[in-house]
Amino acid sequence: MTRLGVVLSGRGSNFLAIADQIRQGNLPAEIAVVISNRPDAPGLAAARERGLATVSLPSKGVDREEYDQRLAATLKEHQVEWVILAGYMRILSAGFIREFPQRILNIHPSLLPAFAGLDAQHQAFDYGVKITGCTVHFVDEQLDNGPIVLQAAVAVEDSDTPEALSARILREEHRIYSEALRTLLTKPWRIDNRRVVLGQ
Amino acid sequence: MTRLGVVLSGRGSNFLAIADQIRQGNLPAEIAVVISNRPDAPGLAAARERGLATVSLPSKGVDREEYDQRLAATLKEHQVEWVILAGYMRILSAGFIREFPQRILNIHPSLLPAFAGLDAQHQAFDYGVKITGCTVHFVDEQLDNGPIVLQAAVAVEDSDTPEALSARILREEHRIYSEALRTLLTKPWRIDNRRVVLGQ
Repeated sequence: MTRLGVVLSGRGSNFLAIADQIRQGNLPAEIAVVISNRPDAPGLAAARERGLATVSLPSKGVDREEYDQRLAATLKEHQVEWVILAGYMRILSAGFIREFPQRILNIHPSLLPAFAGLDAQHQAFDYGVKITGCTVHFVDEQLDNGPIVLQAAVAVEDSDTPEALSARILREEHRIYSEALRTLLTKPWRIDNRRVVLGQ
Repeated sequence: MTRLGVVLSGRGSNFLAIADQIRQGNLPAEIAVVISNRPDAPGLAAARERGLATVSLPSKGVDREEYDQRLAATLKEHQVEWVILAGYMRILSAGFIREFPQRILNIHPSLLPAFAGLDAQHQAFDYGVKITGCTVHFVDEQLDNGPIVLQAAVAVEDSDTPEALSARILREEHRIYSEALRTLLTKPWRIDNRRVVLGQ
């Protein structure tokens, strides 16, 4: 069983979707610890209710490098092999990323490289795209930039609102994050330049 | 019948797809003239073979503003209502765009705003996206930037090459360019900020 460390800042709905897939036997993994930089994150409470190990590690007022060292140390204490970002609202330092090479995943609510950064669903809606979606990607030192594991497309309807669109994208997020993780844990893969390719 | 003016620089396969749709009675339009800035463009020869009016208007060595004035004049001589760019490898000047407000369309082989500019299919392949596609959009003064009419998604396969991917995107281009034009010619639509929305 691969040991996952979940890091979140909010409700952690993508964490809950992965936890459900594990519980249903669809992912050969276990959640070793759930860590939040916000003590009041609903996702942390939900993890506690599920009987998972949780750590509240407040980031407020802490220097980034120092915070990331504490975060990495906490993950290693729990023998985490893969770091799963689930609505973690901070950029990770290069030092942190070096601690978990090719083992940090994130999900972003757009078809990257379009609409990186905050409020991607609103950005896409305002731009007027007819197709947007979501992206599971490896995390590197640049925001929303690492190699892409899996994407799903979501059509924008004429009658859409940003809220309705966000809800449909979120359903796809819940589906593909587990699917991407399952692929990476169960199949051979490699990163060829920045393309994630299945096979030896 | 809406009068279309096609402007191209190469083989014009998107022009031929639209011409086929017109011939099959699927588009309430006629091609008033096909213009190329390259005298040897295969698309120009194909238009001649089909008995369409053609104009060869070489751009080499001509100042952009002056060229665009000649281009606009030629289109207006042929009473063109909509300008259809089909592989036209030049940026249009602001002056030209003002001559045909909200009546210039282009197709681009990516899901804009990702991978604007040349060689979009290769750009997408090298970036490692898992979903790319094509975009029909209004043309404004910035490259590949105007309001989006229609997009189609195309999955990138693990076994793909840039060439195989380009061929699958091209099939979707041939489908959605006519579909977008049919919608604009037969249904009410408006541009709301930069969103193209159907309905009054």
